[in-house]
Amino acid sequence: MDFNLTAEQKKLLDTAEAVARESLEPRASKYDAEATHPIESWHDVWKAGLLTTSIPREYGGLGLDMTTYVMMIERLAWGCTSTAMTVHMHSTAQRFIDFLGTHQQKTTFFSDVVEDGRLVASWGSEPGRRGGASPTQTILSPVDDGFVINGQKHFCTMAGGAFRYLVACAAQGFPGRTGTVMALVPRDNAGMKISGGWDTLGMRGTVSPAVTFENCLVKREWVIGEPGQAENCGIEKAFGLGYSAIYIGAAQRALDCAKDFVKKNRFDPDPGTMAENSLIQRHIAEMALALESARLLTYQSASRWNEVEETGFRTILEGRAKSRATEAALFVTSRAIQVCGGRVAHKRYPLERIFRDVRTCTLMPPNVDRALESVGKAELELEL
Amino acid sequence: MDFNLTAEQKKLLDTAEAVARESLEPRASKYDAEATHPIESWHDVWKAGLLTTSIPREYGGLGLDMTTYVMMIERLAWGCTSTAMTVHMHSTAQRFIDFLGTHQQKTTFFSDVVEDGRLVASWGSEPGRRGGASPTQTILSPVDDGFVINGQKHFCTMAGGAFRYLVACAAQGFPGRTGTVMALVPRDNAGMKISGGWDTLGMRGTVSPAVTFENCLVKREWVIGEPGQAENCGIEKAFGLGYSAIYIGAAQRALDCAKDFVKKNRFDPDPGTMAENSLIQRHIAEMALALESARLLTYQSASRWNEVEETGFRTILEGRAKSRATEAALFVTSRAIQVCGGRVAHKRYPLERIFRDVRTCTLMPPNVDRALESVGKAELELEL
Amino acid sequence: MDFNLTAEQKKLLDTAEAVARESLEPRASKYDAEATHPIESWHDVWKAGLLTTSIPREYGGLGLDMTTYVMMIERLAWGCTSTAMTVHMHSTAQRFIDFLGTHQQKTTFFSDVVEDGRLVASWGSEPGRRGGASPTQTILSPVDDGFVINGQKHFCTMAGGAFRYLVACAAQGFPGRTGTVMALVPRDNAGMKISGGWDTLGMRGTVSPAVTFENCLVKREWVIGEPGQAENCGIEKAFGLGYSAIYIGAAQRALDCAKDFVKKNRFDPDPGTMAENSLIQRHIAEMALALESARLLTYQSASRWNEVEETGFRTILEGRAKSRATEAALFVTSRAIQVCGGRVAHKRYPLERIFRDVRTCTLMPPNVDRALESVGKAELELEL
Amino acid sequence: MDFNLTAEQKKLLDTAEAVARESLEPRASKYDAEATHPIESWHDVWKAGLLTTSIPREYGGLGLDMTTYVMMIERLAWGCTSTAMTVHMHSTAQRFIDFLGTHQQKTTFFSDVVEDGRLVASWGSEPGRRGGASPTQTILSPVDDGFVINGQKHFCTMAGGAFRYLVACAAQGFPGRTGTVMALVPRDNAGMKISGGWDTLGMRGTVSPAVTFENCLVKREWVIGEPGQAENCGIEKAFGLGYSAIYIGAAQRALDCAKDFVKKNRFDPDPGTMAENSLIQRHIAEMALALESARLLTYQSASRWNEVEETGFRTILEGRAKSRATEAALFVTSRAIQVCGGRVAHKRYPLERIFRDVRTCTLMPPNVDRALESVGKAELELEL
Repeated sequence: MDFNLTAEQKKLLDTAEAVARESLEPRASKYDAEATHPIESWHDVWKAGLLTTSIPREYGGLGLDMTTYVMMIERLAWGCTSTAMTVHMHSTAQRFIDFLGTHQQKTTFFSDVVEDGRLVASWGSEPGRRGGASPTQTILSPVDDGFVINGQKHFCTMAGGAFRYLVACAAQGFPGRTGTVMALVPRDNAGMKISGGWDTLGMRGTVSPAVTFENCLVKREWVIGEPGQAENCGIEKAFGLGYSAIYIGAAQRALDCAKDFVKKNRFDPDPGTMAENSLIQRHIAEMALALESARLLTYQSASRWNEVEETGFRTILEGRAKSRATEAALFVTSRAIQVCGGRVAHKRYPLERIFRDVRTCTLMPPNVDRALESVGKAELELEL
Repeated sequence: MDFNLTAEQKKLLDTAEAVARESLEPRASKYDAEATHPIESWHDVWKAGLLTTSIPREYGGLGLDMTTYVMMIERLAWGCTSTAMTVHMHSTAQRFIDFLGTHQQKTTFFSDVVEDGRLVASWGSEPGRRGGASPTQTILSPVDDGFVINGQKHFCTMAGGAFRYLVACAAQGFPGRTGTVMALVPRDNAGMKISGGWDTLGMRGTVSPAVTFENCLVKREWVIGEPGQAENCGIEKAFGLGYSAIYIGAAQRALDCAKDFVKKNRFDPDPGTMAENSLIQRHIAEMALALESARLLTYQSASRWNEVEETGFRTILEGRAKSRATEAALFVTSRAIQVCGGRVAHKRYPLERIFRDVRTCTLMPPNVDRALESVGKAELELEL
Repeated sequence: MDFNLTAEQKKLLDTAEAVARESLEPRASKYDAEATHPIESWHDVWKAGLLTTSIPREYGGLGLDMTTYVMMIERLAWGCTSTAMTVHMHSTAQRFIDFLGTHQQKTTFFSDVVEDGRLVASWGSEPGRRGGASPTQTILSPVDDGFVINGQKHFCTMAGGAFRYLVACAAQGFPGRTGTVMALVPRDNAGMKISGGWDTLGMRGTVSPAVTFENCLVKREWVIGEPGQAENCGIEKAFGLGYSAIYIGAAQRALDCAKDFVKKNRFDPDPGTMAENSLIQRHIAEMALALESARLLTYQSASRWNEVEETGFRTILEGRAKSRATEAALFVTSRAIQVCGGRVAHKRYPLERIFRDVRTCTLMPPNVDRALESVGKAELELEL
Repeated sequence: MDFNLTAEQKKLLDTAEAVARESLEPRASKYDAEATHPIESWHDVWKAGLLTTSIPREYGGLGLDMTTYVMMIERLAWGCTSTAMTVHMHSTAQRFIDFLGTHQQKTTFFSDVVEDGRLVASWGSEPGRRGGASPTQTILSPVDDGFVINGQKHFCTMAGGAFRYLVACAAQGFPGRTGTVMALVPRDNAGMKISGGWDTLGMRGTVSPAVTFENCLVKREWVIGEPGQAENCGIEKAFGLGYSAIYIGAAQRALDCAKDFVKKNRFDPDPGTMAENSLIQRHIAEMALALESARLLTYQSASRWNEVEETGFRTILEGRAKSRATEAALFVTSRAIQVCGGRVAHKRYPLERIFRDVRTCTLMPPNVDRALESVGKAELELEL
């Protein structure tokens, strides 16, 4: 475990911090109110060079190690949870392309991002299936000169906003979990229709409606890897690490808001500012420590990412980070509101939005129960 | 402590339950989305005979004991938190009228409610003052044939919606806390202007903007009691008991939603319904018990309301109920969402609204820190 | 739910309180240090008329309702956890005798208690079996003029101290759970040997070693009921209700000690007594409310005891009380020590003993996991 | 923050682990039962080269950095909490000698440790003073050829066991906190008498009775530093970091015991071992993560020890580590017992001792309230 960052890493994190504060934060409440794609913020993230962090250097990306990556996502989330979440999904889609794609495919798909700042979404959820389970209802079937997809996906983040969608399909004719295969479908595909709304508690800027596929044509070169290769390949566990970073970045923002509020406000007839109240100091301490310990656990998990390139090991890393980051972020965002009091329920303060975002995005798979199950089994040396 | 209800009390609670389920619940999401007064629901509550519960029988009211009252408010909150909250504020305003008013005033003000179902709001908060502190910035000054009010109030629930507003003022010329006096101002008063918006996390149907008073004319007969009489009279502690009941009713609704969801849903590849999962059973048990124990403590506090008619004693009752009901409701509403998972973040499910409502209304004074302080001092036999 | 006690009930509780304070408390640390039977305290409980509380009035007992019984046990536990626990086990044994015994058996066994203050123990646990599971290793076999018991019991409370032991046996030849049968074995039986020690964290005065039965002769008239009758008869759930009361009484004692300590102590250079510190007031409040809400839930469960005379229903009552009382008592006893600080780790203060006792006796079946499981299943209308 | 240990550091930690497992652990229950000094274990720690870890290399010590030191203490605590605690106090006394002593004094005092394995205790507490407050009642007064100490100390760890005692005194004639001065008194000093017992909940092997000084003669060369120099010098904050490591080591032991127990035990009629139960897996996960996050926070605090050599900064480091390590260790040791069940209340299992030790040693100053206060003030940029 080594968090001694190089000058280059530090500079990148400073950049992320500046983009979050100057570009993402000022637009976050608008995307929330309108439930629209954070297009301008994506653009700024790309301009700052942070859209290619998980693309290898040989393809023009930054090829960040997982620890620095996680720290970068955390910083973006401080400014706008929805932007950080979509950038993280895009970045994880790049990892799949890197793992599964041919040299030719990588050249094509990566250059879209590097040259043009085009985002790639990643769609996995299905109606009636537990989040995180492998796909069974979105079927990829061979046709003359390629494939078609039929079925439905839920929680299709960036639908209509990203340039391409990485769709997890079940290859026709493969039994059980042996046929999971990934297809990269471009936005303007006629066989793909948004079939549900996105009016939710939080994470409203992630715009994640249901999408229906009807004989959606897929060219041969859009399919990356062979059926089964994407199943439990270990890459998918990067999702949870990034989620954890997002919870922590958002919760840090909530804590900072609360600290700022109690330092600046004084209410008659209480003497002094709220910050001078010993109970408020205690609340702040409890929040800061809950957050910091979840952060350290998340960094620790990220720093061990390459120790074993295997789903089982990474399930534990993800489980450790996600269960504690979830708990800490829920605690901090709720307590921050409580400490400040009724005034911050107004939408002119950011706290209520962050509170909604955190309660929403902590629901993404694996949920706390499953995350703890993985950790417990690993501790007891039982099979996952 | 005696919860053996009479047949009459039980019937009234059944009525409240039916109104909540059939009339309030179906409109709750609309009031939330639009942030409008629950006018139709108020009407139904009146028609069901539940707008007069704290008006004495001799004036045509129901004159409920505090325990039955609290149980009634809890049932209304199950259907619509905003309606329950406004009805509770109205009902507590009636308690002030009963305590401070002359026979003539009671006859007038109570008949508005009994005959015409007109609501009375209660405004106490001021900018720059801690919630629950006595007023110093809303000044009632004598003029020729009555008074004028000048100043500003915050969190003016039912502004523009209620028929009259019970405004807590500081009588001009009275030092410190000796001059608190209550004036009942009708809605159509030209000296009173809504001066702020109401766009909040939750409790959106309580419509509680800032209101500015500029030489707002007040007739002599609209002022109830003498300066100082309303200060620490003990009546004000009924607020907190009712809030507690609202938290419990809302949390019960959240728990019921979660139970319903897990009984009806099954997600591949998990075997059986969610309800058959032992971890989900445990979550449900933890929620049910947290809620039930807070409920019992709230009923216990209500049942002791008349033991001592004094602010100090009632501060403790209120503190006991409010601190535990707050904690239980925050826990239950957040955990209920977690148990059900990402789908219930959609606004088509009621859970997310109840979650927002509870986080919002638990901020009302006294906050948890102050509630616990009262309880701790009482346990240690220190002065409050 | 009705806690309006009659004058007679109140008097009995006052008696219990006086016995606890004057007789039990002064000896509690001795029994703990020596791990010996609280013989003198049993005697005082008998003299005060509290050894017959679950014996019907027609046999000379007090025939208390469950609510008053639970309140009585709670008061005894305030003075000495081990005495309260043994008296509770004895009292629950009387319930079995009442439920299973013939008139002749009741006359005999009850008169021992009423006339002579003789205690009856109740032994159920077996090596290698989960606590609370029905017996399979202690076999009751017929011989010429009666029966013999062979096997081993664990956690044989009052071994060597009580006058008779109610031994849960498996009747030879009955499959599964159909043969559970109870035998009342007197102390001086040659076939019964204490075969293990009792050197434990807490509850040291309950003296609960292992006991081995080798052809232990049992007269026909010592066996109460037919094989199977004692299995899931509902009576056994009285154990858990009484345990809950014991946790609450012990925790109340810990809280009282802490309150006393902080009121009396002042440590340089802190200003004032510890009680004047606002954080300490908060700790006291949190403890008091955790305890009070668990107490109300326990009383509520007790008050519903006779609603349905059935194991399933009573399992839920027991589960509700025991899970919350466990949690509250663990919290209060640990926090009480923390609030007072290092000095109370000395054995000259009672806090450390109560802390050990509570951590120990809350392990008795059903444990928290199983208690919550029952509650969760009941909430979800699933079979227990 | 860099935990990349060198081969040398790793070897040392392996040594500590081996000593803990092979030498300390087998004797821990004896020292607990008898409340005697762990003399044999001290000897083994010395022989393993771990008694000189905070003595500079130029004086023959190991001169460990704070992070490795803390990891070493954690490992010792896994085997025996009392041995780890006394070694830690001894080691912190060496830090004072290094900071305050002359070259001549260091040569003398350090060689006792390096050559002969003699332990140095550190006594600060006084009756009627808050733990951690500077001394006012143990007065060092000049006499002809040196000084005398008069007064009383509480919690004098290793009294009668260590070779020398570092006594924090108030130099006569110095007002307020300006006169704190340290004297190193050898064991065989006639003016020093053990005046209290040591019969406590836990940490019984630390033997920490009260000690009375009556004209206790102190040679000039036994006093290290000038009056005031030892006051808030920053060294004293090493105590809390080491305590945190002890809590974590002890809790890790408890967790390991619980894991071992549930893997090896199976109780009828439950299917499979306890470890296969999903609720037990969850408990284990919750314990492991609470512990790991407190551990990371403790290591982080230790790794920042030399960033600022100042009491204020180090108070925050200590506060961060100690508050979370306290909470985690209390949780883990209590839950470990709960998971295993009633059998582990027996003293033949180590869990109950560790549980008692942790509840006891977490009471050492600063307590959680003060630790959180420091952290909260630091977060809010207020003066400590």
